Amino acid sequence: MRLNAIIAGVGMTRFMKYPDKGLKELGTEAVRSAVADAGIDLADIEAAYVGNCAAGLITGQESIRGQVILNTIGVGKIPIINVENACASGSSALLQACAMVTAGLYDVVLALGVEKLSHPDKLRSFAAFAGAVDVDELNEMIAEMTKAAASEAGGAGQNRSMFMDVYAMAARAHMERYGTTKQQFAMVASKNSFHGSLNPRAQFREALTVEQVLNDRLIVEPLTRSMCSPIGDGAAAAVVVSEGKARQLGISKPVRVTTMVMHSGWNHREDEPDTVELCAREAYEQAGVGPKDLNVIELHDASAPAEIIGYEQLGLCPRGEGGKLVESGATKLGGRLPVNTSGGLLRKGHPVGATGLAQIVELTEQLQGRAGKRQVEGAKLALAQNGGGKKGNDAAAMLVTILEV
Amino acid sequence: MRLNAIIAGVGMTRFMKYPDKGLKELGTEAVRSAVADAGIDLADIEAAYVGNCAAGLITGQESIRGQVILNTIGVGKIPIINVENACASGSSALLQACAMVTAGLYDVVLALGVEKLSHPDKLRSFAAFAGAVDVDELNEMIAEMTKAAASEAGGAGQNRSMFMDVYAMAARAHMERYGTTKQQFAMVASKNSFHGSLNPRAQFREALTVEQVLNDRLIVEPLTRSMCSPIGDGAAAAVVVSEGKARQLGISKPVRVTTMVMHSGWNHREDEPDTVELCAREAYEQAGVGPKDLNVIELHDASAPAEIIGYEQLGLCPRGEGGKLVESGATKLGGRLPVNTSGGLLRKGHPVGATGLAQIVELTEQLQGRAGKRQVEGAKLALAQNGGGKKGNDAAAMLVTILEV
Repeated sequence: MRLNAIIAGVGMTRFMKYPDKGLKELGTEAVRSAVADAGIDLADIEAAYVGNCAAGLITGQESIRGQVILNTIGVGKIPIINVENACASGSSALLQACAMVTAGLYDVVLALGVEKLSHPDKLRSFAAFAGAVDVDELNEMIAEMTKAAASEAGGAGQNRSMFMDVYAMAARAHMERYGTTKQQFAMVASKNSFHGSLNPRAQFREALTVEQVLNDRLIVEPLTRSMCSPIGDGAAAAVVVSEGKARQLGISKPVRVTTMVMHSGWNHREDEPDTVELCAREAYEQAGVGPKDLNVIELHDASAPAEIIGYEQLGLCPRGEGGKLVESGATKLGGRLPVNTSGGLLRKGHPVGATGLAQIVELTEQLQGRAGKRQVEGAKLALAQNGGGKKGNDAAAMLVTILEV
Repeated sequence: MRLNAIIAGVGMTRFMKYPDKGLKELGTEAVRSAVADAGIDLADIEAAYVGNCAAGLITGQESIRGQVILNTIGVGKIPIINVENACASGSSALLQACAMVTAGLYDVVLALGVEKLSHPDKLRSFAAFAGAVDVDELNEMIAEMTKAAASEAGGAGQNRSMFMDVYAMAARAHMERYGTTKQQFAMVASKNSFHGSLNPRAQFREALTVEQVLNDRLIVEPLTRSMCSPIGDGAAAAVVVSEGKARQLGISKPVRVTTMVMHSGWNHREDEPDTVELCAREAYEQAGVGPKDLNVIELHDASAPAEIIGYEQLGLCPRGEGGKLVESGATKLGGRLPVNTSGGLLRKGHPVGATGLAQIVELTEQLQGRAGKRQVEGAKLALAQNGGGKKGNDAAAMLVTILEV
């Protein structure tokens, strides 16, 4: 969808485990910070879209999460709509905000993504992901994974999100088909840990060597712990405004969302594009750009192999050559096209509903030249890819966003 | 918000308890029926907004409910966004659909509301409502209700949704302040039961006398069982199209959504309007109509007193005279301004996420002259009011919709 919406301000909490903070504290911190960044008052917000995935299961708060969060800082009355699309909830909220502004229906809209995922009982956090697949297919999936887990050393299949099993299967298939190596997956994790070491809002700040990644605890072959995104809490927000409002605010370097494409998973055949490819192709076409024109990317590296496969799906390199691309250094800060300068989901963290908007925080700061030590010099065109859930052999919800300055 | 979106087709399941049907069966039945009514193919749908409230708690299906439902009938690929706003989830989905079409971003959008609320363990169904209030305020609310329940005969406080306690408190306040009587509440329930007896899709088809309502089992003073909306399952859907698409489809009597106003609850002072009043005032102003111009209304009668209070909030009569209005017969079929010709939430049923769209099903059929025995002759202008959740002293989400033919 062609859009013309301007990101007037962004804000986020650091992503981490916050045993003493709930949805309200996290959500309002991100909102206050985005509103201050935009130079507007809370009272200027005309509508809000709030993305969250697991609050019901973790905190008991269902249905009216956005109202409950925003009311604590006096934001009421305005339309507040809660949006849910698993790990793509944040981008789904952004899409609605941008569409409404593009349509001229509002001038100032808040998009908030927030998640409280950590729980003293880790199994409950993992269980929250079970709602993001077709529950009728769950038993089949579990059977398949149990079979796979039986061949694992230790077979500690319970102590992880089932999504890591899904990612591990995709990783093994990629290795078999294209000769991609575990070493290359480790390079992704090492690169993103370096980026994360430069990001004060990253859950993990330690820079890891490839060897450290490889020697980390095995979660499920070929994934070691540092190749998997962690459980964490956090919130991220963007204030989206119309062209006219942006002028009025005197934003010196307005970041424009020009295109967002969303697709839902379906049972595609092997020779058909999946949702990431479909979104990327359409987004490039609508924006009139190609992968070569991009300066910086945030993509959905829920696991290290997902980043390598993502390179290929987004057309950064031919099919099967994602491993070589990370090896070349092109996607590291200083390279031709840095990917996940924030540290990505792997290191910045992945509080499900907040993730899509945290990508927008990073890219907005990059395009405005205020990303500090992570700055990609002269970045003018950026892409975000954020996906969520599982339906059939694909993600349930996928979004690709193109931003420019 | 001024809108220009046309309801090309509507469909719904009968509302009732379906022990053997889940979200998929209910949702797809409503969608197929709306699509057939619109004379389009499933493949024509460009985007879908799916409203649901309690699936996570009742069925375990969270996050990607819309994808899971729609994929079973081959609807994939397109953007599917899950929308949650407690009992106003269905109208919230409709608002997004209408806004996107009005903006010209899509020509054919599906709005689906679906709920699986019944559960062999009734307490679990009641518990599902707990997520629709601020869970941090829950303990206070429960304490207040327990105090109230202590003075009840029997004090069977656990066997009902806490929302009935909230409604009962509002009813008692209205009785004290304005002299409204239990008899008048019973008249609402009796009237709606008569309407429901004419509606093949109503959960309850029995017409009740005022005496039968009064003699029914007491839930919480002054509410007897037939003054409370029941637990039930169901789905309702609308196909929303642009002006151009409506012409192309050759719809003979297009029903137009001209205005939808949404507000979220806040802690208003006694002298400030609540969300219903606020939505109604703005909707009348934007549509350039007044309550006197309306021909038929579906309002959120989650309890019988809520309908009487609703008359006043919507400006159908002065404050405090809602009881007299129902007594006058004006709001019964054949009266000046029939309200809840479907049977309302009380008798048609109230499967939370489906309710707002079921109101649109009824009003669309009324405006097109195909409501059968429930037909309001010559109906040209209709209003729907749908609210959800609780925040502070108000609903968390409130919507008023104006439709015309």
